[in-house]
Amino acid sequence: MTTEVKADSKLQTYKDLARQLRIDSIRCSTAAGSGHPTSSLSAADLIAVLLAGHLRYDFGQPENPANDHLIFSKGHASPLVYSMFKAAGAITDDELMTFRKFGSRLEGHPTPILPWVDVATGSLGQGLPIGVGVALAGKRVLEAPYHVWVLVGDSESAEGSIWEAFDRAGHEGLANLTAILDVNRLGQRGPTELEWDMGAYAARVRAFGVDPIVIDGHDVAEIDDAYARARGASRPTAVLARTVKGKGVSFIENKEGWHGKALDPEQAKQAIAELGGETRSRTFPVAKPERWDRPSMQRTGSLALKTYAEPIATRKAYGEALAALGAARKDVVVLDAEVSNSTHAEDFKKAAADRFFEMYIAEQQLIAAAVGLHARGWNAFASTFAAFFSRAYDFVRMAAISRVDLRLAGSHAGVSIGEDGPSQMALEDIASLRAIHSSVVLHPCDANQTAKLVVAMADTKGIVFLRTLRPNTPVIYGPDEEFEVGGSRVIRSSDDDDVTIVGAGITVHEALQAADALEDDGISARVIDAYSIKPIDGDTLQSAAEATGKIVTVEDHFPEGGLGDAVLAALAEKDEHPRVLKLAVREMPRSGKPEELLSAYGIDAEHIAAAARQLVGSEVTTS
Amino acid sequence: MTTEVKADSKLQTYKDLARQLRIDSIRCSTAAGSGHPTSSLSAADLIAVLLAGHLRYDFGQPENPANDHLIFSKGHASPLVYSMFKAAGAITDDELMTFRKFGSRLEGHPTPILPWVDVATGSLGQGLPIGVGVALAGKRVLEAPYHVWVLVGDSESAEGSIWEAFDRAGHEGLANLTAILDVNRLGQRGPTELEWDMGAYAARVRAFGVDPIVIDGHDVAEIDDAYARARGASRPTAVLARTVKGKGVSFIENKEGWHGKALDPEQAKQAIAELGGETRSRTFPVAKPERWDRPSMQRTGSLALKTYAEPIATRKAYGEALAALGAARKDVVVLDAEVSNSTHAEDFKKAAADRFFEMYIAEQQLIAAAVGLHARGWNAFASTFAAFFSRAYDFVRMAAISRVDLRLAGSHAGVSIGEDGPSQMALEDIASLRAIHSSVVLHPCDANQTAKLVVAMADTKGIVFLRTLRPNTPVIYGPDEEFEVGGSRVIRSSDDDDVTIVGAGITVHEALQAADALEDDGISARVIDAYSIKPIDGDTLQSAAEATGKIVTVEDHFPEGGLGDAVLAALAEKDEHPRVLKLAVREMPRSGKPEELLSAYGIDAEHIAAAARQLVGSEVTTS
Repeated sequence: MTTEVKADSKLQTYKDLARQLRIDSIRCSTAAGSGHPTSSLSAADLIAVLLAGHLRYDFGQPENPANDHLIFSKGHASPLVYSMFKAAGAITDDELMTFRKFGSRLEGHPTPILPWVDVATGSLGQGLPIGVGVALAGKRVLEAPYHVWVLVGDSESAEGSIWEAFDRAGHEGLANLTAILDVNRLGQRGPTELEWDMGAYAARVRAFGVDPIVIDGHDVAEIDDAYARARGASRPTAVLARTVKGKGVSFIENKEGWHGKALDPEQAKQAIAELGGETRSRTFPVAKPERWDRPSMQRTGSLALKTYAEPIATRKAYGEALAALGAARKDVVVLDAEVSNSTHAEDFKKAAADRFFEMYIAEQQLIAAAVGLHARGWNAFASTFAAFFSRAYDFVRMAAISRVDLRLAGSHAGVSIGEDGPSQMALEDIASLRAIHSSVVLHPCDANQTAKLVVAMADTKGIVFLRTLRPNTPVIYGPDEEFEVGGSRVIRSSDDDDVTIVGAGITVHEALQAADALEDDGISARVIDAYSIKPIDGDTLQSAAEATGKIVTVEDHFPEGGLGDAVLAALAEKDEHPRVLKLAVREMPRSGKPEELLSAYGIDAEHIAAAARQLVGSEVTTS
Repeated sequence: MTTEVKADSKLQTYKDLARQLRIDSIRCSTAAGSGHPTSSLSAADLIAVLLAGHLRYDFGQPENPANDHLIFSKGHASPLVYSMFKAAGAITDDELMTFRKFGSRLEGHPTPILPWVDVATGSLGQGLPIGVGVALAGKRVLEAPYHVWVLVGDSESAEGSIWEAFDRAGHEGLANLTAILDVNRLGQRGPTELEWDMGAYAARVRAFGVDPIVIDGHDVAEIDDAYARARGASRPTAVLARTVKGKGVSFIENKEGWHGKALDPEQAKQAIAELGGETRSRTFPVAKPERWDRPSMQRTGSLALKTYAEPIATRKAYGEALAALGAARKDVVVLDAEVSNSTHAEDFKKAAADRFFEMYIAEQQLIAAAVGLHARGWNAFASTFAAFFSRAYDFVRMAAISRVDLRLAGSHAGVSIGEDGPSQMALEDIASLRAIHSSVVLHPCDANQTAKLVVAMADTKGIVFLRTLRPNTPVIYGPDEEFEVGGSRVIRSSDDDDVTIVGAGITVHEALQAADALEDDGISARVIDAYSIKPIDGDTLQSAAEATGKIVTVEDHFPEGGLGDAVLAALAEKDEHPRVLKLAVREMPRSGKPEELLSAYGIDAEHIAAAARQLVGSEVTTS
């Protein structure tokens, strides 16, 4: 009898909590005048049972490394997130009612401004692959006791990234991960593709190596049982919950046209009455995790960087520096999308296989996993061809909203890759990644510089992108030179320079050759290596502008938003007005030898020298 | 007996062709000194049987609308593509041997420079979703007789976009689509995740609604049978072929370390000897399709655009103009990623449901399908939130390499969306899409202007992006005004303007308010609506720079690569050096009311006026 009473009491607690979550989800969204109450109501029972019965989380210590993780991949269910925080006693009812108001921590979609939120969500299909990263950190590296729960919307299962995540979870055997799929049948503008075909969801999940548990998502006993099975499972699980959108309020239940709409005050009153009326808010106890101390990650071992004298590719220097960094700092982890022999991330793998993550050809999951590893305190470096970060651009964008410190290394930049052709050439990467908030864009031209910048990346805030080259380049810097983020290097200058050439990466070497040729013509060219494209060294550019009045910028990139535009923007901020001639790739490139392509697209030494002569010798017009 | 002889003869033809394809794949890549012979050899039998036995294609008339389509999703198997073209008599052996050389049509990865190539591939995971678009065009709109065959690599099945494609194929019941999966077990740097687990592939494909046919990919009889079944099936099919990488050459067969490596001349000699030695090249007949005339698509019906006088959102004007355009032009098709009630693409759907494609929340498939529809002659408009085009950035990049004319409409740009917060705000879209080769970026500020630009988009070459707004904006242009791509509008000016304000979209209205406020201070401000951000109207900017010497740019976008940088680049080309002060969103925005956010991030009328006063009243420094 006692056991039964206890069970009854537990189920009653779940129901009471679910009722409160529903009422609060309606209250806060109605007060805001916008938001997603119906998407919150469908998942209220799922979250109530999780919070009161299965989550192990110390809301007073969100940094406790033993805490479970709960990620709302369906970030638009933010009224439910915040109502849950209130029920757990983490925020007050007054703060709950600031939802979506300017200055509130309770944004339209959750962000880590709140200490209990691991990562920003709201672009669908990202929470689950990020959860995979958090689970990987727990299983592969730390052997941590936490479980990762991800609430996934049914609509977002149309995103391929969800299947990259299930694939990775299955292949890695992430028994510490449970996806909770809220199958409420209705998307934004109508029924989802699979509606309530639970069998189809189960077959898909199972085929990707994850065990499905199909339940009624409003039966708290079934939910309770499913979570217990999920936590105890030896394989990754997906709780597939059949639910009703707007559940609990008759006039919005399973109705189209109610996605992303707050109830007006009169409707809210009626809805709350249907839910049993507003009662005194309760705080529900949440189980804390057992104590577990995270193994320390030594961060200050001695660093033994290779030094270089002979021509070598910057991508190779990246791999070797990363391996050295990984030996010195045990907080460094590396991920690659099945091209580690090209990016040279394999050098790290050879040195520290336990901290290397093969993500196969799934760039979205690559970035998501890096974000998840960062959420657990790792210093994550992710690499692929620079062109293929475009596949994960939305994930990088969201990582910035998550305030993640992320290190990206993109190889095979520009036409200098040669024969493989434009599909493999990054020619938009500087522009797209400069535009990311908090980003840093670095583009070294030699191996010693690369090694130093790889070390600098590890302690740089924000989304740090290192652009590396396929071909070997000469070594022009000594191994003892230091390179800071935001700096540049004046490689060649005199007191009476006639013109300045600004390059980065491969074009630095072309610029130096051009300067030699110009010297033969009696023209003295200053050469600046703008290896830090964002932030760019405005002071050095200003000095050059003042000294020479004429600047040629040259980049292996399309003309928009790259090095040249960064230089123009920096000079505009300094109110400096030199003549600027911008050399960049202005046609869709073809296949050919690197030197043929640098010439054909007008960014080799010959074209740089011609542009400089034009600036020096005549009134300049357009490029 | 005759039938048997005929069957024997058919199988022998397949084998002879496969042998030639293998030898030619080795010959051309060895001559190039790079390329992917081993990835070509694994699929040689699959392609030989297809070409000689099942493809219906008139190589003399690649534009024949009845032709089958064959897309190499694994674009790196380009030696096989080109060897196939030679075997079909489309190119000579001499041209084959120009593979990867500068100036050759035979690029490292196939592009539509060749008339028999529908779309560029080489970024993995794109060919199948594009094939879905070609199949959709055949099934849904045209009822065309063609079949779409897509050769897919096993490695690329790790890309989520492949599962977006299988999902769409299954849901739409695309019986005219066959994916041929070349399961050669080895990726670039080692074994694939699933290696030769054919059962796992079959389960996945089946769960997504596509019928698997598992075969030995080197048994020409099995392949022959599988293709016959695939062509005759009433549902979409996937031929899952177990193959061996490097098949036919003992020293590279199933060996790691041979991905993307050409054989050296000595190795090539040995390999060709193993394959039976070089013999006289044959041309193999390819069956032509039966004649089928594509129904004509009327393109010049009368256009009845709505006109506007009251405030309304530009996204709504987009939907209404699109509906009008669709009524006038039967070549227009529209795709949307489950947000058509927000982008207002639903207005088109209501008017022409047969030409509307719901792609659910799968932005990669959204763009891929648009590319596929374009390949069949449709004028495709694709819409979602502008922020979410970032999810498909690699697909847009590749569409440019495919020389596609693609129309993208992105709604909910910038902080002016308000409460939903940064995950839903496009703040990098102008930068990232400006950097795409061939792109056009348009950003109207009122409904009449939007309508005219929607019409203009339909006849504009390249990747045309229209950025629309969530909130209502005042109508400032009459319905008879014309707006051309590359133009701008000087909305307010006098002979003695002190300063110029350049805006686009929401900031045009803020700029006008600022000009009113400045007038009260005795400052005369010229206001330019730079609705065409790429190409931008350099002449008008030049005139303004000459007239006022001072420019404030203001954009609802991050500072890098947006409107301000476009203005700076245009002025640099004109060698004009006004003082330019760039207003943009410089923090990670939060939730709030649109007007609160425009103010908080420094891009509202008040901040514009302050910036203008600063420029006019003092020596300017930085913003």
